[in-house]
Amino acid sequence: MLDNIRIVMINTFHPGNIGAAARALKNMGLNQLCLVDPREFPHEEAESRAAGAKDLLEQATVVSTVEEAIADCQLVIGTSARQRSFDQPLMDAEQAAGMITDEARSGQVAILFGRETMGLTNEEMMLCHRHLFIDANEDYPVLNIAQAIQLVCYELRRASKQTEALPEPAPYPRQHEMTLFHEHLEKTLHRTGFIIPQHEGRVMDKLRRYFNRTRPEKAELGMLRGILTSVEEALEREAHDPTLDRSPQGGANKT
Amino acid sequence: MLDNIRIVMINTFHPGNIGAAARALKNMGLNQLCLVDPREFPHEEAESRAAGAKDLLEQATVVSTVEEAIADCQLVIGTSARQRSFDQPLMDAEQAAGMITDEARSGQVAILFGRETMGLTNEEMMLCHRHLFIDANEDYPVLNIAQAIQLVCYELRRASKQTEALPEPAPYPRQHEMTLFHEHLEKTLHRTGFIIPQHEGRVMDKLRRYFNRTRPEKAELGMLRGILTSVEEALEREAHDPTLDRSPQGGANKT
Repeated sequence: MLDNIRIVMINTFHPGNIGAAARALKNMGLNQLCLVDPREFPHEEAESRAAGAKDLLEQATVVSTVEEAIADCQLVIGTSARQRSFDQPLMDAEQAAGMITDEARSGQVAILFGRETMGLTNEEMMLCHRHLFIDANEDYPVLNIAQAIQLVCYELRRASKQTEALPEPAPYPRQHEMTLFHEHLEKTLHRTGFIIPQHEGRVMDKLRRYFNRTRPEKAELGMLRGILTSVEEALEREAHDPTLDRSPQGGANKT
Repeated sequence: MLDNIRIVMINTFHPGNIGAAARALKNMGLNQLCLVDPREFPHEEAESRAAGAKDLLEQATVVSTVEEAIADCQLVIGTSARQRSFDQPLMDAEQAAGMITDEARSGQVAILFGRETMGLTNEEMMLCHRHLFIDANEDYPVLNIAQAIQLVCYELRRASKQTEALPEPAPYPRQHEMTLFHEHLEKTLHRTGFIIPQHEGRVMDKLRRYFNRTRPEKAELGMLRGILTSVEEALEREAHDPTLDRSPQGGANKT
């Protein structure tokens, strides 16, 4: 189950932190490290800090965008130093670990860690289904990124010992399917006039948060996509229906 | 209560680890860092890795021996990467944190961390009342020292939220009192002939472990010291008693 959990480090500045993170993962029995656009990698400082976990460095995936890092994941967790207020439900590391190990029985889960200086951007936070924070000293809650990764992996290991190992059928769609759905949804809402070009961003942000929070299952997503398609097809039919009265007074009424 | 917990780093090789440890402490609300004979300190690498915890570096105590580091402590916990077999009861980080925060209400507690390469020596392990291990991957259980400190501090913070804050009267003696007792005991056992010079080390080791495990309270230690004193005084009296028959056949019998 720990094999299905991917630790994603975005735009890491210090290669030493990447090495320390690799070691932190291996110490806790994880093995998936994904680096999104690291500033310097490979680097001897990463090798050095990885110590006995150089194999994880070699196996690490390096990609250019966050979307690539999470495309095949059914659950995406964002981390932050502070309890930032978004709509995604907020959990401490222990709570999140329970949810993550549970889902990791049936599919891939990604946990996103941001830049040393500023963590994750708002956009990256909104890609996530849930947010995780590490309970820390209010006077100084910002942990070193490799330390934060160590704590999260520690909680994951602990939770994995309590979670039943039986695999479950995977009910959730993967991130790239959700991305396609959001694109489809946006296009459809433009066509229906629900989205006006001036306010486009806010509506889609709100909808994205809604779907991240409620997490439609595969079958449900199938229904939602079917609904969108039916709306589009209905609009197509009406657009080409010769019997409709298109006079300004009549509206789109059939004569 | 976290204020009464002292993190002790023995013979640390990399100053970066000292800085990272200081940050780890402050992130979790602790503030006592004690360095026993660090290889290089102060050092700019420690400053750099400490980030927002430079104040803890400045306040850190630097001593030459472990004994100095723990003299005023009523509870001393040793850490190890592996579940080494000694007589001291072994606990994982979570269990130990419960005991530590409980005792920290009434006195000082020290947690010892050893060298990057080899952890604590056997002698240092035997100074401890209890041993703590961090549950980790059996294939690679050796954490970076600052990471281990981070995890322990994290568990301490968690436990402190669950422990009642009411201070209790301190029932346990401090380490230096126990050290004096052991010296007194050893001297007395030499005098009684219980310790023969050839086997001296093993008897005292076993006794030290016994007292570390059972942890006499202050009053009990008072009694034990009183017993030792009475034995010495009795031996003194007999040595100078003119009425005793000291002939080889008679033994030390009064005539």
